[in-house]
Amino acid sequence: MTDKAKTERVVHVPLGERAYDILIGPGLIGRAGGEISTRISGRKAAIVTDENVGALYLEELMDGLEADGIDATSITLPAGEKTKSFEHLTKVCDTLLSARIERNDAVIALGGGVIGDLTGFAAGIVRRGVRFVQIPTSLLAQVDSSVGGKTGINTRHGKNLVGVFNQPDLVLADSDALQTLSEREFRAGYAELAKYGLIDKPDFFAWLETNWQAVFAGGPERIEAIAVSCQAKADVVVADERESGRRALLNLGHTFGHALEAATGYDSARLVHGEGVAIGMVLAHEFSARLNLASPDDAARAEAHLKSVGLPTRIGDIPGVAPTVEELMEAIGQDKKVKGGQLTFILTHGIGRAFVADDVPSSEVIRFLEEKLGQ
Amino acid sequence: MTDKAKTERVVHVPLGERAYDILIGPGLIGRAGGEISTRISGRKAAIVTDENVGALYLEELMDGLEADGIDATSITLPAGEKTKSFEHLTKVCDTLLSARIERNDAVIALGGGVIGDLTGFAAGIVRRGVRFVQIPTSLLAQVDSSVGGKTGINTRHGKNLVGVFNQPDLVLADSDALQTLSEREFRAGYAELAKYGLIDKPDFFAWLETNWQAVFAGGPERIEAIAVSCQAKADVVVADERESGRRALLNLGHTFGHALEAATGYDSARLVHGEGVAIGMVLAHEFSARLNLASPDDAARAEAHLKSVGLPTRIGDIPGVAPTVEELMEAIGQDKKVKGGQLTFILTHGIGRAFVADDVPSSEVIRFLEEKLGQ
Repeated sequence: MTDKAKTERVVHVPLGERAYDILIGPGLIGRAGGEISTRISGRKAAIVTDENVGALYLEELMDGLEADGIDATSITLPAGEKTKSFEHLTKVCDTLLSARIERNDAVIALGGGVIGDLTGFAAGIVRRGVRFVQIPTSLLAQVDSSVGGKTGINTRHGKNLVGVFNQPDLVLADSDALQTLSEREFRAGYAELAKYGLIDKPDFFAWLETNWQAVFAGGPERIEAIAVSCQAKADVVVADERESGRRALLNLGHTFGHALEAATGYDSARLVHGEGVAIGMVLAHEFSARLNLASPDDAARAEAHLKSVGLPTRIGDIPGVAPTVEELMEAIGQDKKVKGGQLTFILTHGIGRAFVADDVPSSEVIRFLEEKLGQ
Repeated sequence: MTDKAKTERVVHVPLGERAYDILIGPGLIGRAGGEISTRISGRKAAIVTDENVGALYLEELMDGLEADGIDATSITLPAGEKTKSFEHLTKVCDTLLSARIERNDAVIALGGGVIGDLTGFAAGIVRRGVRFVQIPTSLLAQVDSSVGGKTGINTRHGKNLVGVFNQPDLVLADSDALQTLSEREFRAGYAELAKYGLIDKPDFFAWLETNWQAVFAGGPERIEAIAVSCQAKADVVVADERESGRRALLNLGHTFGHALEAATGYDSARLVHGEGVAIGMVLAHEFSARLNLASPDDAARAEAHLKSVGLPTRIGDIPGVAPTVEELMEAIGQDKKVKGGQLTFILTHGIGRAFVADDVPSSEVIRFLEEKLGQ
């Protein structure tokens, strides 16, 4: 048995003619050329990456592609959430057209969620769609943004308000790439990973409570946890590709989380996405308990686990001046999960028992936030 | 029988969950509110128009929407092809988000192909897709760009190289709006109308040879010709929504036509799209004859009809300095209908017998163009 066969996991996402594989394991960046060649006919590729990830992995990826006869160009963008803008989208599209990327050529996103979202959007609109390969290099991107086909950019009105649904043709989740993440980045990704347990996998959540240290240390538990997460997300996406119903469950913690990100100006020094989701998930559990939908014990258990891995769990954990209730409500109102003025929230009946509530009165939300912020 | 029932035609485009109706007839702009209300649940709408069309029809449309209880905002853009840019796309998206257009609200394109393409793109990416209504006010837009779901903008690399497939939820082709078109604009639209005859409807082409003056004069022949054209395009689109095969036939005349537009700098004083297509269709027939695929008599017949309605049919008919073969080949190479370096052209075996040729050697194209340009 080779090392690869021992450790590599494949999650197949069965979306009809948009079906694709997620490969999870070590050494995938170096082997990308071979994996792409067997699935995509074009002999050209364009890599989009950021300054941090590019410095670490771009050369290895380019060499590997070249060795497999793929002619690759690349564009390196500034790291950070601000790169998800119309300005950089325009730049990436221009680069792809200059490189004469055709419909059967691959556009490769090498980086975290920012690069994946931006690149997937560009790949979905250049020539009305070219082939798209994701090489997510953060834990967050591996378990979340590389599965599901959501792409997009931010505007002054909020996050991800402009984009397309664009399923990748292939995802290569190289577990080696996670070795270079900071502790904080790894934890932020872990919040999304734990989310799948909180949504509808209570056994997985319990497994994480026991095994989280091994997941942080690396090795087979980490690959296992990533594979379970990708499978969990794939199951939801297959059931509801265009987000009309069940898929909304994936937004557990995200309405509050996005609002916190918006109200702190998307300043990653203060709050990154996964941290916002961690606080948001605890708020969603507490809000559910306040509405007598779940036991306060479950909220306490969710918080205890997220806290034990070092994640922030309360609005007060965010450094700097706390956002006001008005700022948070403004952001919640602009959030795209609004229907005819009513607020949609993901609430829960307990650990692993999340559900979609699309008739939450905003007055209840305001009162809850006022309580939380002591206003 | 009411006047409406006597004259209005409906073409249904049966695209499964993306199915929609095209209504063709007089007075539709004033009645838009009612038609939208029965099909779209949202009570908000945003109208995108240009300075020329807005001055003529925006007030009537806004009043009609208001009368039917739809709260509408509007944005008016400069007229002309240059509006199909990333800059204006960004602006339109910002307007839609500022107006808090939600997924079930309508974005309405009131204008010609430029407004339709830009607005359809914006409606397809804001919140990853909101409802989209087309009110095409040029003949070209009514018979071509309002059917088929292609949307997009131009870049310095060429036309329509960035966009999405986005089927409208409703098309209102108001025949009254054509009364304000200039003779030149009407003729440009007529080129696309005649195209459907040349592709695979020889009887329609013969009918046009006899009835074109009545189509130009207005009245029932005009509505009939628009309905036949919409139906013809709908048939092709239904058979091949994502343009992998048969749909390419709609590009008859477009590879040469786009190249001429690019090489003349998209200067509408020199050449508008429909005129480029007219010349391109004649070139496609002549090129087919040169390759011994069709009789030169058919090329002469196609040219004679287009010429009789006053359309340009030769590169020399374009005012100003003629483009060079190099300029045209550069544009053809960048055109999106390129596969692995090979050139794809729509050629013909005669009137109404067009076909897709995806292995045309560029050397043949160069020789043909050199001959045409006397170089």
